[in-house]
Amino acid sequence: MKLTRLADYAVRAIVHLATKSDGEMTTIAEIAERQGIPASFLAKVMQALSRGGIVNAHRGKSGGFSLVDAPENVTIRMIVEAVEGPINLNRCLLKPGECDRDFFCGAHPVWREAQDALFAVLDKYTAAEMAKSQIENIRKQPEG
Amino acid sequence: MKLTRLADYAVRAIVHLATKSDGEMTTIAEIAERQGIPASFLAKVMQALSRGGIVNAHRGKSGGFSLVDAPENVTIRMIVEAVEGPINLNRCLLKPGECDRDFFCGAHPVWREAQDALFAVLDKYTAAEMAKSQIENIRKQPEG
Repeated sequence: MKLTRLADYAVRAIVHLATKSDGEMTTIAEIAERQGIPASFLAKVMQALSRGGIVNAHRGKSGGFSLVDAPENVTIRMIVEAVEGPINLNRCLLKPGECDRDFFCGAHPVWREAQDALFAVLDKYTAAEMAKSQIENIRKQPEG
Repeated sequence: MKLTRLADYAVRAIVHLATKSDGEMTTIAEIAERQGIPASFLAKVMQALSRGGIVNAHRGKSGGFSLVDAPENVTIRMIVEAVEGPINLNRCLLKPGECDRDFFCGAHPVWREAQDALFAVLDKYTAAEMAKSQIENIRKQPEG
């Protein structure tokens, strides 16, 4: 029960894009350096985010990536699901009847409640809020 | 971000043992049949639960498995962690300083809050409660 590295890096990359002014493009090199993500792996992350409809990829010399939507509208769950697919804590939550035991199983409602609790947090925080807290935290650091 | 099949089956097996009277032994064959778990895989599950200190394995002709502790004391989180190891939703939660960005990262506190919300549910429900609800649900079914 663990986030993939792809999703971990995807969240970091989107938080970085959300620290930028509206629609500003950012290069892979900058995201990799500022977010501590191996550049080779980051290319895959950005591809997945582009396919998932979270970022626009701009080609060419002055190209890069920008957010499709305002960071206020992008929750952490949207980022994770864009690259990992829908979160299902247990396979019995995929859809009603996916497991033929779900109508009596004593564990099924517990998995449902656990997933709802997880979603409540992941639906609450947006890229905008995470970027704001990150910028504030960096400002608070003593200069090295 | 998904439970392993090992942990899914481990929870089912423990719920089954918790439906039994105190200390009653149960065979692999019975657990497999009643909980819909492939017997070959269940052997691995029970081994993991034995190593994790959740069940006692009794050898011999009249052998089988029983719970080490009273089902009221066994939470669903204890079962999952016995077979999967400690739950860490993201690798940055493993220990303070595991990720050198955790003091400023905007996502880190969100992962922490998500994990705490998940733990609140998984620490709340015991094998005894899940077994009780399962027995009641089966009783409510119309006879076939």
